[in-house]
Amino acid sequence: MTQAPRDIEDLIELMARLPGLGPRSARRAVLHLIKKRGQLLMPLADTMQNVAVTARECVNCGNVGTSEICEICASAKRANGEICVVEDVADLWAMERASVFRGRYHVLGGTLSALDSIGPEELRIPRLVERISEENISEVILALNATIDGQTTAHYIAEQLEPLGIAVTSLAQGVPVGGELDYLDDGTITAALRARKAL
Amino acid sequence: MTQAPRDIEDLIELMARLPGLGPRSARRAVLHLIKKRGQLLMPLADTMQNVAVTARECVNCGNVGTSEICEICASAKRANGEICVVEDVADLWAMERASVFRGRYHVLGGTLSALDSIGPEELRIPRLVERISEENISEVILALNATIDGQTTAHYIAEQLEPLGIAVTSLAQGVPVGGELDYLDDGTITAALRARKAL
Repeated sequence: MTQAPRDIEDLIELMARLPGLGPRSARRAVLHLIKKRGQLLMPLADTMQNVAVTARECVNCGNVGTSEICEICASAKRANGEICVVEDVADLWAMERASVFRGRYHVLGGTLSALDSIGPEELRIPRLVERISEENISEVILALNATIDGQTTAHYIAEQLEPLGIAVTSLAQGVPVGGELDYLDDGTITAALRARKAL
Repeated sequence: MTQAPRDIEDLIELMARLPGLGPRSARRAVLHLIKKRGQLLMPLADTMQNVAVTARECVNCGNVGTSEICEICASAKRANGEICVVEDVADLWAMERASVFRGRYHVLGGTLSALDSIGPEELRIPRLVERISEENISEVILALNATIDGQTTAHYIAEQLEPLGIAVTSLAQGVPVGGELDYLDDGTITAALRARKAL
């Protein structure tokens, strides 16, 4: 049986499909939205419409944007000869928040996976190879997650890029800033020890 | 600095204001929405628009609906002489899910609170008193939360209704179905023991 009118039940059902919300929290969120109709529900509905119409993938790098070529690919300032390869747009955003990388990105949209039949084409790897010469790239930085799948994909990409004679690097592994040894896994400690630096 | 185009950043910022979502999970939810544009983002944007336009409070009981009088207040079948008083629409939905109460509701929209200067008028208590005679009510069931504020409000309402000579009851307190004594607080055990029943 339904507790609320059809529209509201539909909204709850759709909200419950968002990651991080279940049926119960979706219901709570929808009630909150209805209570804050002017400050929250209306702006959110409008913004969602806008994004639904304008959001698209950059044809060059796979980043999310509102134009065919994303802001980063369109910016001449970011053409410093470096491409940072990430799994997902969320990872690109994380890199941008750190404000340390000034080059361009290439978003794979996942990792290689024989089980899910995700091959190099699905991950835009051929496009990455094309970009090396098109954009006069001298270094590709693999910023993939330190998971088995991420590392497998990194190795595959490194192999593909080898004949091109450019630098292929990956993020350093080690102790996170503010991290305590006692809470770190063995793998991280091993990696950090092997990559130790002279002070 | 912004990582994404303005519209998308706006959407993240608005989503982060929903209960149960923070800035990080809002970002994840928005990326998920953009990836599932056809199946999720567009229907969600449309439904949200609909709800923003149609959702309103029932002028009689405070329930959320799409018309001036909510479905429950409009249904003659629900006019059985009983009103169930709840704090919030979420509580009304919880009661409806149990499918056990066949009367009408009165949604207070909160509890009495001197600190937040929430008085009887803000809680539709005068309207509740009016409804007793208008709708020929014989019993008011107080289904308020078993918190200090909920119970204070229940006592106040019981006092207001006393002169009307109708039955005023409240939900029983006791061991929840499936509950284990070992995990219950002392107050619940005390209440359950005092209200023990002959088998």
